[in-house]
Amino acid sequence: ARSPQLDNTVEGVWPLPQDFTSSMEQYPLNPHTFHFGYGKQSVAQRGCSVLDSAFKRYFSLVFPDYSSGSKDKPFTAEISVDHDHCDDYPNEESSERYNLSVSERKAVLNAETVWGAVRGLETFSQLVYQDDSGSYFVNKTEIVDFPRFQFRGILLDTSRHFLPVQTILKTLDAMAYNKFNVFHWHIVDDPSFPYQSCTFPNLSSKGAFHPMTHIYTQSDVRRVISYARLRGIRVLPEFDSPGHTSSWGKGQSNLLTPCYRSGIPSGTFGPVNPALPSTYQFMARLFQEVSSVFPDSFIHLGGDEVDFSCWRSNPDIRTFMQKMGFGVDFAKLQAIVNITSALKKTSIVWQDVFDYHKRVSKYMVEVWRAGCYLCEVRKVAKAGLRVILASPWYLDQPGPTHDWARYYTVWPLAFKGTDKQKKLVIGGEVCMWGEYVDATNLTPRLWPRASAAAERLWSDERRTSNVDQAFPRLQDFRCKLVRRGIQAEPLYIGHCKHEFQGV
Amino acid sequence: ARSPQLDNTVEGVWPLPQDFTSSMEQYPLNPHTFHFGYGKQSVAQRGCSVLDSAFKRYFSLVFPDYSSGSKDKPFTAEISVDHDHCDDYPNEESSERYNLSVSERKAVLNAETVWGAVRGLETFSQLVYQDDSGSYFVNKTEIVDFPRFQFRGILLDTSRHFLPVQTILKTLDAMAYNKFNVFHWHIVDDPSFPYQSCTFPNLSSKGAFHPMTHIYTQSDVRRVISYARLRGIRVLPEFDSPGHTSSWGKGQSNLLTPCYRSGIPSGTFGPVNPALPSTYQFMARLFQEVSSVFPDSFIHLGGDEVDFSCWRSNPDIRTFMQKMGFGVDFAKLQAIVNITSALKKTSIVWQDVFDYHKRVSKYMVEVWRAGCYLCEVRKVAKAGLRVILASPWYLDQPGPTHDWARYYTVWPLAFKGTDKQKKLVIGGEVCMWGEYVDATNLTPRLWPRASAAAERLWSDERRTSNVDQAFPRLQDFRCKLVRRGIQAEPLYIGHCKHEFQGV
Repeated sequence: ARSPQLDNTVEGVWPLPQDFTSSMEQYPLNPHTFHFGYGKQSVAQRGCSVLDSAFKRYFSLVFPDYSSGSKDKPFTAEISVDHDHCDDYPNEESSERYNLSVSERKAVLNAETVWGAVRGLETFSQLVYQDDSGSYFVNKTEIVDFPRFQFRGILLDTSRHFLPVQTILKTLDAMAYNKFNVFHWHIVDDPSFPYQSCTFPNLSSKGAFHPMTHIYTQSDVRRVISYARLRGIRVLPEFDSPGHTSSWGKGQSNLLTPCYRSGIPSGTFGPVNPALPSTYQFMARLFQEVSSVFPDSFIHLGGDEVDFSCWRSNPDIRTFMQKMGFGVDFAKLQAIVNITSALKKTSIVWQDVFDYHKRVSKYMVEVWRAGCYLCEVRKVAKAGLRVILASPWYLDQPGPTHDWARYYTVWPLAFKGTDKQKKLVIGGEVCMWGEYVDATNLTPRLWPRASAAAERLWSDERRTSNVDQAFPRLQDFRCKLVRRGIQAEPLYIGHCKHEFQGV
Repeated sequence: ARSPQLDNTVEGVWPLPQDFTSSMEQYPLNPHTFHFGYGKQSVAQRGCSVLDSAFKRYFSLVFPDYSSGSKDKPFTAEISVDHDHCDDYPNEESSERYNLSVSERKAVLNAETVWGAVRGLETFSQLVYQDDSGSYFVNKTEIVDFPRFQFRGILLDTSRHFLPVQTILKTLDAMAYNKFNVFHWHIVDDPSFPYQSCTFPNLSSKGAFHPMTHIYTQSDVRRVISYARLRGIRVLPEFDSPGHTSSWGKGQSNLLTPCYRSGIPSGTFGPVNPALPSTYQFMARLFQEVSSVFPDSFIHLGGDEVDFSCWRSNPDIRTFMQKMGFGVDFAKLQAIVNITSALKKTSIVWQDVFDYHKRVSKYMVEVWRAGCYLCEVRKVAKAGLRVILASPWYLDQPGPTHDWARYYTVWPLAFKGTDKQKKLVIGGEVCMWGEYVDATNLTPRLWPRASAAAERLWSDERRTSNVDQAFPRLQDFRCKLVRRGIQAEPLYIGHCKHEFQGV
């Protein structure tokens, strides 16, 4: 079932580029005479952190082992960009468009931004192949490429299990290979609070699984953000509230609502307590810190699965509700706790918040519930809010690997709506929740199934809707991931030229 | 949900020992003053390969990092065995029984055989724990232990995907930690023939995925057998025939039956061809080699899922059937191809062979089909044949990890039968088929789910039938596996003191 000859053509690039001309004309490449260089007209030149480090990275990816080429003609890959964003962070407006032209002795890669150049380098590295003697080749190729959706994310959950920083960095590598551009860091939740806050150090010293070994220090967080930046990946932090905050209560007293049973406190705690002014002070200070530590202009506020019954049970909360004139609409509490905290950022919330307060329109909505998720997408878009689709990509749920097709045959815009409404669907996200996932099984559970979502979010749907056509390409791409040290699991019976060796 | 204090007691040993007395009385251990030694009455003494290497291995397992103990009294673990099998292979009659007594400054481990001593060393290593400062301790303990079933196997399939030797060795390590004692090597099948035969080198040079990189040389096979031996693990080879042999046909012409359509050869091939004398010569020579390369007294002949329709379509086969007086009972063909090949070995076959030929009674039967598998176990036992149960332990099928309970709540003897019939159930086997499994995902898919089967096959069912009691013990054991470098996946939300770091 494998078609190794795929390597030699642009069909071997995953996700599929938008527009390309492929040729059987092949050029040998020799690591000793190959180099990446800046185009004369490029605004970014040597010293550009993003591209200098990308050239280094992609040299190793293009030439995974050294064996001299069959010819010794020099080959230059010349990269040019129109804007110098070398020291910036990628953001929602960053163009990822690039043009790549491979001809004899020369590849020319032009992009508006360094982020587009990084995407083009990834494509170039996937175009290079080796013959049986180990020599490198690339075929004559013309590519015009750009992403279908602006937001292509992966969520990792570091609360239900702690993921070592190395594991996160490895995932960022694999994301870059798949042209994902948002790392949604679901960093804290009920089970543990591994984020070491400067303002509230007790949150992790009391709320993490272990105060020293199971935390992310400020330096860890900076390392993740910087590693992601160089790969054109944004880091979107989520501090989910007012529910999903059990671990917060360990290091911050009076934060959570005491639940009552038969009129007396039961000893258990519910969501963040909206009746105490101290709560708002705490939330404001915490989110102020988060906003400055994470440079991205988006912030995820969570807001899902709030347990109203605890609020309802508590007489102080009921009194507060009356004072506020909320009647018995406990959903209103959720909004006030949560929204006050956003600071000059674009907020994202889970769909629950939209379902309760359809009129509030300051945020983007992430659709996650199963069922008719396109109905929900349509509702949100009709309300004029931007949408991120996650429902069909809950990859933490184990299933046969050949389920990749289920993640591939997702049509995010197949709902009745105007063009303007469809433009509000800014992208999608693969969610890897942590109930059953930690560093031991994250990678094979994520890859190559997330690659199916990657192509859906990047490529032209009309050219990538056929599962049978995609299958050999995905098998081939999975072997490339394995060759690059990503423990991506097999799709079906078969083999890779270079099998995974690390155990 | 984790109960770290479990570490300190015999409850922390997995699979649960048969008979033990645990105590809160603890003794410090210091790697600088600890040593394993042979008891004076031990028949095996220094120079015994199995125990010398086990002492070395278990020293590292007992003291995973060095930090000096809180006391400096010497501690000796004295091992004695009644028989010197140091240079033998474990076999079906090998006793794995051991007694372990831990008292102040001394642990005494007595076993009939070195294999029992190896099991006892595993238990001892699981009894040792560290306090927060890193000092080592072991509690006063008395254990009498022995396996419930003689045959406790794991099947790996190296045909649907090639598994590097390192991956197999790592699995043997994990098997030893779980007290499994049979590695069922399903080495060849339809997709590929990675076994490099001395007699028929074309089988792998033409039938492997790659003739150089995706094969097991004679030296690889010897290495696996020797590594397994030192851990008290038997290597049971399976060369499945007469079906499941597509890959054999690539390197051995005229071996497979040409299938016919509309009276002419269709170009496809079916099972091994029983009508040609050359088939029997080939099979005899191949199995002669296999019998001598693999020292175990058991051999697995396969015999499952034979496609009779191809035989039926072929006029030469039909003529042969008439000549042999088989009428139209094509199942008879399966028996003659397969059984003739066993050479002074105890043959195991998949249940299909029994289902076709209930009267033949030379073999053991492995029950693998889903449905009422105990009905099948009962039938086989009633026929007086020995049984190995695999049906409930098809772990290659992905499922939520918390499925471990499904693999734990298996009652292999819960069928109506005499004591004599129940004794015919010699054990069980975890099957890890390779359709969706290779070195990238084998370990987290196998462990700790196979550990559930391990306890079922080793321990007293009456003391290990409660899932809620087993859960914290298994969580704890899974962390031990992770600490030992086995990428065992998590059972549920939580953490290990030492998380998996390798990526």
